Amino acid sequence: MCEQRQPMSIENVQISDDFWQQRREVIREKTIEYQYQQLQESGTLENFRRASAGEEGGHNGMWFQDSDAYKWIEAASYVLANHQDPELDRRVDTVIDLIATAQRTDGYLNTYFALEEPEKRWTNLNMLHELYCAGHLIEAAVAHYRATDKETLLDVATDFADHIDRTFGDEVDGVPGHQEIELALMELADVTDEAHYRDLAKYFVDLRGHDDRLAWEFKHLEQIAGYDPDDNEGGIAGQAAGVFLEDGAYDGSYAQAHAPLREQATVEGHSVRAMYYFAGATDIAAETGDDALLQHLDLLWRNMTEKRMYVTGGIGSQHVGERFTTDYDLPNDTAYAETCAAIGSIFWNQRLFEETGAAKYADLIERQLYNAVLVGVSLDGTEFFYDNVLASDGEHDREGWFECACCPPNIARLLASLERYLYAVDDDGLYVNQYVTGTARPTLDGTTVTLTQTADFPWEGTVEIDVEAPEPTEFAVRLRVPEWSSGVSVSVNGDPIAVDTDEGYVTIKRIWDEDRITADFEMDVQVLEAHPNVEADIGHVALQRGPLVYCLEGVDNDIPLYQYAIDPETEFEATYHEDLLDGVVTLDGTATVPSKDDWDGELYRSAEETDETTARVTAVPYYAWNNRGPNPMRVWIREA
Amino acid sequence: MCEQRQPMSIENVQISDDFWQQRREVIREKTIEYQYQQLQESGTLENFRRASAGEEGGHNGMWFQDSDAYKWIEAASYVLANHQDPELDRRVDTVIDLIATAQRTDGYLNTYFALEEPEKRWTNLNMLHELYCAGHLIEAAVAHYRATDKETLLDVATDFADHIDRTFGDEVDGVPGHQEIELALMELADVTDEAHYRDLAKYFVDLRGHDDRLAWEFKHLEQIAGYDPDDNEGGIAGQAAGVFLEDGAYDGSYAQAHAPLREQATVEGHSVRAMYYFAGATDIAAETGDDALLQHLDLLWRNMTEKRMYVTGGIGSQHVGERFTTDYDLPNDTAYAETCAAIGSIFWNQRLFEETGAAKYADLIERQLYNAVLVGVSLDGTEFFYDNVLASDGEHDREGWFECACCPPNIARLLASLERYLYAVDDDGLYVNQYVTGTARPTLDGTTVTLTQTADFPWEGTVEIDVEAPEPTEFAVRLRVPEWSSGVSVSVNGDPIAVDTDEGYVTIKRIWDEDRITADFEMDVQVLEAHPNVEADIGHVALQRGPLVYCLEGVDNDIPLYQYAIDPETEFEATYHEDLLDGVVTLDGTATVPSKDDWDGELYRSAEETDETTARVTAVPYYAWNNRGPNPMRVWIREA
Repeated sequence: MCEQRQPMSIENVQISDDFWQQRREVIREKTIEYQYQQLQESGTLENFRRASAGEEGGHNGMWFQDSDAYKWIEAASYVLANHQDPELDRRVDTVIDLIATAQRTDGYLNTYFALEEPEKRWTNLNMLHELYCAGHLIEAAVAHYRATDKETLLDVATDFADHIDRTFGDEVDGVPGHQEIELALMELADVTDEAHYRDLAKYFVDLRGHDDRLAWEFKHLEQIAGYDPDDNEGGIAGQAAGVFLEDGAYDGSYAQAHAPLREQATVEGHSVRAMYYFAGATDIAAETGDDALLQHLDLLWRNMTEKRMYVTGGIGSQHVGERFTTDYDLPNDTAYAETCAAIGSIFWNQRLFEETGAAKYADLIERQLYNAVLVGVSLDGTEFFYDNVLASDGEHDREGWFECACCPPNIARLLASLERYLYAVDDDGLYVNQYVTGTARPTLDGTTVTLTQTADFPWEGTVEIDVEAPEPTEFAVRLRVPEWSSGVSVSVNGDPIAVDTDEGYVTIKRIWDEDRITADFEMDVQVLEAHPNVEADIGHVALQRGPLVYCLEGVDNDIPLYQYAIDPETEFEATYHEDLLDGVVTLDGTATVPSKDDWDGELYRSAEETDETTARVTAVPYYAWNNRGPNPMRVWIREA
Repeated sequence: MCEQRQPMSIENVQISDDFWQQRREVIREKTIEYQYQQLQESGTLENFRRASAGEEGGHNGMWFQDSDAYKWIEAASYVLANHQDPELDRRVDTVIDLIATAQRTDGYLNTYFALEEPEKRWTNLNMLHELYCAGHLIEAAVAHYRATDKETLLDVATDFADHIDRTFGDEVDGVPGHQEIELALMELADVTDEAHYRDLAKYFVDLRGHDDRLAWEFKHLEQIAGYDPDDNEGGIAGQAAGVFLEDGAYDGSYAQAHAPLREQATVEGHSVRAMYYFAGATDIAAETGDDALLQHLDLLWRNMTEKRMYVTGGIGSQHVGERFTTDYDLPNDTAYAETCAAIGSIFWNQRLFEETGAAKYADLIERQLYNAVLVGVSLDGTEFFYDNVLASDGEHDREGWFECACCPPNIARLLASLERYLYAVDDDGLYVNQYVTGTARPTLDGTTVTLTQTADFPWEGTVEIDVEAPEPTEFAVRLRVPEWSSGVSVSVNGDPIAVDTDEGYVTIKRIWDEDRITADFEMDVQVLEAHPNVEADIGHVALQRGPLVYCLEGVDNDIPLYQYAIDPETEFEATYHEDLLDGVVTLDGTATVPSKDDWDGELYRSAEETDETTARVTAVPYYAWNNRGPNPMRVWIREA
């Protein structure tokens, strides 16, 4: 059984949205180019060249460096799907050729192993990421095939997938330390219509937590690839931050291998791994009609969103192990909230939505997209946050690239495929999940209709959708009612529609011809508090307007940020500034601040003497911080 | 010129105070014995044995391990001053014999150099602490001589001091990385009446910040003692945490050597070093009548107390470098506030008081004694905090001993010499600085009088002092009015005395015969706030009653400590519990706590919905925390 709802293909959606278009142009015009240079400068492409030439040694970068090339191809393919760019097309073909020639005759493909330890394939599933790279190869191949109809990379991917299929469950029994191949194989099955790829994905999802292969590797370091007895830092094993428990025992939870999935009641371990895992598992639940598994995944989703997620949608609160920790443990200044984890969560939530039609998953996609993901890249598209703190004393700063460069290409491939997250179709009609200006041409009840959406998100909550059907056609249009909206009004051709937001959607089922839907989602400033068990946020509030979480940045505010206190009743003024931060709405209001006049050199005094005054405070969207140099920032502001 | 005011000798003060006697008995009966065992087990005494026997290599412990033995002798000597203990007396003599035989014929004495690098004396002044150990030897010798009239250790100390006097300013020009010898030489000059020791102390104080010897050593590691080219951790140099700036340059501020003392406007660097330095400098200012220096030291004192001190009196807020950082940087959960630094501050403040007669210095001694020092030792006297956090999630726990075991013997020598800090005499009369039950026999205007003080500090603010003069004698009695007291009443023989607290003392000058002074210092619960520039404390309050700072401990309170919020107007009930924590007054009141009833699985929601309730909260004295196992603690509580 396939998902109930299908996303639209990139080609059938055109985005012309002021907010997103600007960012996507940066991706197309700068980031893709910049990343290609990085592939060259980091030696990533050189690795493929050497492997093609049968050389030995000298592998550049991380063991999973190949995946950078695959993610670049994937992002470039999404760009090619909607844009004529012969030069990029040729460049992609060249890289694919290089990859294809590096593939071994048996289908195996990994430059680290080809160059460094050819005899040790599949011996270090924990950390050497052959299956992870294979997954990204497959995702790239699927995207490239869909965008260009070329099968060049798809052939490489299927050859490697077939090799894996022959190997695993037979020569080798085990699961990858870093999930990714599961969801990729499900996509490969979709485009090739080869069911055995789904079986292989299911094998990897089902075996995890049931076998002790990963634990075994940690007890037999000398038998695994990458082991270096002279490396005081612990070599491959030592680099696996968070893999060990304090007593030195293997910590399966790092890779969600501490228990079978259906016995895991909380989201644990490395957050990117977790998201990719759950995304693949959701695909399998959908494919097999396994409602129990789906419900279990929703239980994990609730643990994440109700106890282990930053207000930005960021996940994974601890640097060591890049991982989830415990319920309500959400420190702000040391938040990890890796950009890739939020991206992984969007992959997972899109699948949960496709299977269930529940608006809450699309709500979370919106929150993570506008906050946890977007903050990961500078406005000019060339600098990136790997980890995303929610409070900084001014040291935190984006960087051009990372030794472990997973995030920048991940952002690129997500934003370049934004079209996939806006709409979905099912037998009954169309879902409008994200409000982004542009057109879509879904086929509904056999008729291809044109929707022209005009929105000014995230700044204004008004949306117009013009529906044009070539002939009168009956279908439902479902408009997501954003979780943050305090009031909704919808009309069709000026006639108000009764709104029942219980389901998270306003559903308009009628015979459509040439009609205009107008929706207004009230976009008030919300002053939020966190659950009192979140120690880091207690006594503090955060500002949100529409889908955007706000922050105070030092550059906009005169006194130290920790000294501002905000009364939840404060009226904030929302003002659009065209010239600020590529155009943002700021929130301006009055805060309580301590008076420092009469301290007379005292450091401590009776609290009854407290003397306060007021000061103006300006908040900017969280995603836009650190675009005017490193400076102090905080999302959570003291509550007055 | 000597100080204007002189402390009383230990022999002339007898303490019989419930609160302190209990702790001092622990020092006498357990700690001194325990520390002696540690001297044996750690190999400290073995170092002296080997050096005596002319052995080579095999030095045990830190390079300054000798100082543990010296500090033990010093503490034991204070005990012997007021207690007949022939066994301890003999044991001290035995250790002194061992030390004496380890001394070289030229007077030099240091077991690390004797055993490991005899040819490299005085080459690593930064870290190898020969002068620091010499200082502790001298302090021990002075204490032993004063307690027993024996000159055995004093002879060793003067021989070494003479050797240093011959060496420095001639063969070697430089200052110690860790101050201590300065104040010790001033004491040695006092008991020997040899002025050249004062000149030597002045040499070390005055040269600091003017020469580049310490910086030179860091540029010429291969020439200094302790250098090990094979030590990846950086050897001696690498162990000098905080000595390097980020660019690898030598950081003179670590040892207060970044500028001449008179050009230092802020307290910088390693806090113990700073305190010992300023103590020695105060001695010199007193001796030379250098008012400008004294005023400069008060400027540093004000920087410390107005901007760089925890409410407990703890100083040095950063683990790396055990040091002062910047104004108002006083994190609670990572506070360093080393026990030794508070002890060093008491040494310094006692000297500032002696020179100026200002009550503020005695006030700070009281604050540090009851809080920053006392917290350093468990109630049973066998476990110690090296660093003293002001907030713990439950991990922080006292330990039996430390590799760098400076704090335990330092506490022992301070508490064993508490007599010195209670009273002082000058030409005009007597200062009563600390309220501790016992007797004192000061000689005033040529007459030895007996004062019998009865107090119940820190629990009650009432003090009775019976004065008995063998014949009617005129002198002043000055009672310190504690900074925390909200009201003072004093009477003599039942007749009220007009109280003017401006000077910090109530002065009663009259002809004394047999008279009773009664004083009542109101001991309200104070709810304190910190200066708004202290980010760690903003929006929080601390509780104090009398000299005691309080804290919440998890064991006494039902919900997570960060969830309690206290209104400064709250009436707290102060109740003495005889059976709790060896007898303490607890503070019990009502706090505001968040209601968790109606969150319905939400993690974030509108702050306007905030629902609060109340809960009882119990605070215990900060010094007494962690005596019922490790558990969460916090001094600063959210303000409601």
